Amino acid sequence: MFKVDLNSDLGESFGAYTIGLDNEVIAHVSSANVACGYHAGDPLVMEKTVAAAKAAGVAVGAHPGYPDLMGFGRRNMVCAPKEVKAYVKYQLGALMAFTKSNGVPLQHCKPHGALYNMAGKDLDLALAIAEAIAEVDDKIILLALANSKMVEAGKQVGLRVASEVFADRAYQADGSLVPRKLPGAVIHDTDVAIARTVRMVKEGKVTAITGEEVPLEVHSICVHGDNPSAVAFVKNIRARLEEEGVTIAPIAQIV
Amino acid sequence: MFKVDLNSDLGESFGAYTIGLDNEVIAHVSSANVACGYHAGDPLVMEKTVAAAKAAGVAVGAHPGYPDLMGFGRRNMVCAPKEVKAYVKYQLGALMAFTKSNGVPLQHCKPHGALYNMAGKDLDLALAIAEAIAEVDDKIILLALANSKMVEAGKQVGLRVASEVFADRAYQADGSLVPRKLPGAVIHDTDVAIARTVRMVKEGKVTAITGEEVPLEVHSICVHGDNPSAVAFVKNIRARLEEEGVTIAPIAQIV
Amino acid sequence: MFKVDLNSDLGESFGAYTIGLDNEVIAHVSSANVACGYHAGDPLVMEKTVAAAKAAGVAVGAHPGYPDLMGFGRRNMVCAPKEVKAYVKYQLGALMAFTKSNGVPLQHCKPHGALYNMAGKDLDLALAIAEAIAEVDDKIILLALANSKMVEAGKQVGLRVASEVFADRAYQADGSLVPRKLPGAVIHDTDVAIARTVRMVKEGKVTAITGEEVPLEVHSICVHGDNPSAVAFVKNIRARLEEEGVTIAPIAQIV
Amino acid sequence: MFKVDLNSDLGESFGAYTIGLDNEVIAHVSSANVACGYHAGDPLVMEKTVAAAKAAGVAVGAHPGYPDLMGFGRRNMVCAPKEVKAYVKYQLGALMAFTKSNGVPLQHCKPHGALYNMAGKDLDLALAIAEAIAEVDDKIILLALANSKMVEAGKQVGLRVASEVFADRAYQADGSLVPRKLPGAVIHDTDVAIARTVRMVKEGKVTAITGEEVPLEVHSICVHGDNPSAVAFVKNIRARLEEEGVTIAPIAQIV
Repeated sequence: MFKVDLNSDLGESFGAYTIGLDNEVIAHVSSANVACGYHAGDPLVMEKTVAAAKAAGVAVGAHPGYPDLMGFGRRNMVCAPKEVKAYVKYQLGALMAFTKSNGVPLQHCKPHGALYNMAGKDLDLALAIAEAIAEVDDKIILLALANSKMVEAGKQVGLRVASEVFADRAYQADGSLVPRKLPGAVIHDTDVAIARTVRMVKEGKVTAITGEEVPLEVHSICVHGDNPSAVAFVKNIRARLEEEGVTIAPIAQIV
Repeated sequence: MFKVDLNSDLGESFGAYTIGLDNEVIAHVSSANVACGYHAGDPLVMEKTVAAAKAAGVAVGAHPGYPDLMGFGRRNMVCAPKEVKAYVKYQLGALMAFTKSNGVPLQHCKPHGALYNMAGKDLDLALAIAEAIAEVDDKIILLALANSKMVEAGKQVGLRVASEVFADRAYQADGSLVPRKLPGAVIHDTDVAIARTVRMVKEGKVTAITGEEVPLEVHSICVHGDNPSAVAFVKNIRARLEEEGVTIAPIAQIV
Repeated sequence: MFKVDLNSDLGESFGAYTIGLDNEVIAHVSSANVACGYHAGDPLVMEKTVAAAKAAGVAVGAHPGYPDLMGFGRRNMVCAPKEVKAYVKYQLGALMAFTKSNGVPLQHCKPHGALYNMAGKDLDLALAIAEAIAEVDDKIILLALANSKMVEAGKQVGLRVASEVFADRAYQADGSLVPRKLPGAVIHDTDVAIARTVRMVKEGKVTAITGEEVPLEVHSICVHGDNPSAVAFVKNIRARLEEEGVTIAPIAQIV
Repeated sequence: MFKVDLNSDLGESFGAYTIGLDNEVIAHVSSANVACGYHAGDPLVMEKTVAAAKAAGVAVGAHPGYPDLMGFGRRNMVCAPKEVKAYVKYQLGALMAFTKSNGVPLQHCKPHGALYNMAGKDLDLALAIAEAIAEVDDKIILLALANSKMVEAGKQVGLRVASEVFADRAYQADGSLVPRKLPGAVIHDTDVAIARTVRMVKEGKVTAITGEEVPLEVHSICVHGDNPSAVAFVKNIRARLEEEGVTIAPIAQIV
């Protein structure tokens, strides 16, 4: 039987600022990556988001980012690994206050934005993140880009690691994503994207942009709730996966 | 046998900015109130401070404050109780990441500055803080001004509560501090301050500025490490307390 | 001939966060209060907002607030007058970089949220704001609540002062607003609100909640662009004012 | 007659945090680079620092940095040129509020830390900074590393540009600094450092680490006030320069 997780970033609102259709997307995912106050999110938003995830039966993960609210954590910052390690610990702990008080476990940790991208390619940063998780609570699963340095780091440190794929992104022959600036990086045809994803889940393979068959571990699919069409896509991909006999389940039931 | 705790704020440095003689004062206190990144402190400082406290055998507590780094958390902010509750949870959790990874318990929580002052007089705020603690981990002790609304709130919520006194402050007949702006609020004679403190600890009483004998619960004495004379005072009061047969011990051994 | 200004807060977005229907409301107002990066706004937003105001022929003013992005500047903070003075200078200057580089004058300064409310009732704070403006550029007009301490402070310091009224708020006999928590504070009937406003502009009078006729100086009307119905109200009140022979013009043409 | 400027970073304290021996170093320099609230500094510190510079007859410049207080602006951040341009405008304007109200001109702008380093090597970033200055006030001088992309950008945009050198740093044959991580990058012998600096000022040449004679434009020497020995060095180099017939003067009198 096939199982896969659908994960989405949630709780990225801040103070008077609302971002993301959290209330709509939460009904369709199995894991929520909750912002922890550095790149987005604030304590009230975290409280509310954890409670909403609990109510929806969605597993909660931490979504730590760089301390760059103005850039929404999307800008590369050259921080030392020990800085990154401390920032991840801080944000994990902060979110754990809300998971503990809501009586739900902290299932996973998925770094955000520039931190995700940089650590995906830099083993030292990836190890800093993995060690932060292991030192705070080694039952937390690291959710990371399939075939990235983060997967390697998580395994090296002894964490459970979940690999995620992107439905709408092209892959290179080495299993990495085609960079966004290159032609063909993003798959705009929804049906194609979904069909590829179903195959990734059921066969563990994707066809690279250069034609090769690439093996991929697929524990989770990253989806978005930024706008109505993103939410429609989530409903769509979930329905199609279920039609194909794939069960949607949080990553703690998969890895 | 008499026992009392000596608590001091530590870990209030931030980034490139150093404040407080942490390395000197830590040798002489039994409990450290560690800043949690809102009014002061950052993740690297928190990591370092928790490790230093562990090495010195000093118990660690959280020192949450208002989100006002520019004002060092000393300026009253009119936040809703639910905002304060969420801010305290967030900061408690953030520090717990470092206590967990260092293998030490989070002994207590002592609000900082304006939050301490406002919650000392406002039961709703005090309850917000006490509930935050209870929901995150009800074994955490609330360290609060003797006779304040925080003591009342902590007891109401079912927390263990430790009452602290100030060696160098005059008291009013109702057990509250003489406000700093009034004459006589601060006791500048070190010997007088110490003698008063010894009496508070051994007899549970202080003479109010208006002459009355006021009963006080005294579990902890608040001391400072801001400057060399403050550190000298800490050494001095500790030595005198020990000469008087008072054992210095963290509050978890007292309340 | 009657003239009045319509002012609205603009440029309160921040980083990835969008707030306010700036593009829609800007077409209907004569003065924009542009956030300056403390309670809201960031440099990119300021640049864009000043350019948009210039393109729309709308006069630009500074909208300084407390350093409280998480609370959107709506929470009272007890800052010393010299702190407030420095914060207002900083924000005025920051916005002036964008007005200078866009070749438009900085017409006015209207404090935001809690700063507006606190300074409206506290002459020391109001003087701190007025002095900040006067020291940076004494041609900047202070836009303040009619009959408030800010009007008094602005005049005392020698600034040009514009008094603003609220279309949808009830007034007390002393010319102050009925506090929001009291019944009847907000006028929900749009037609009544507009009729009252027309009368305030043409007759300089409003009927207090207790029945008295209250004289009011009316240079500007505060309107909002938070949501579609607010924008509809702005169009509506502007149309009605113009039908009544009132010219809408920026405050620099009025005071 | 030889003239050179001595510039030092000042006003990098923040809130309760003090950094730098501003009161000591200010007596010995001719230009102050004043932090503008992003990487360091706050409005009260800016007010005080501009007033102190005015009192000491020291010219005031802006010292804009990345929005990274936790990293003191020392960490590379990958911001778009239009972001950097807006951040520099914002900070220039903010400081101009204090120079205007203190009745002194804003003489120059010297980017801080990581922004200085990145823009020194990246013409797009350097142009973003130069354009920001030119659009806010084209009389402001750009103070930049000799032979860097910032010098090139400033000239391209039509600004007056001042080139600065470092007394204690080795140079490469192309006129750039030997990176700090390489051996020999820092010259620890004070006498050698001063002798080299005197030669740079009087002959416009420095001997590269590989032996070549390298021509350098030298309008200003960067000095520091971080600690007592840095301040002693400033006194020392100033005295030696004056003995050698070099006049110390702000860059506005040089370029």
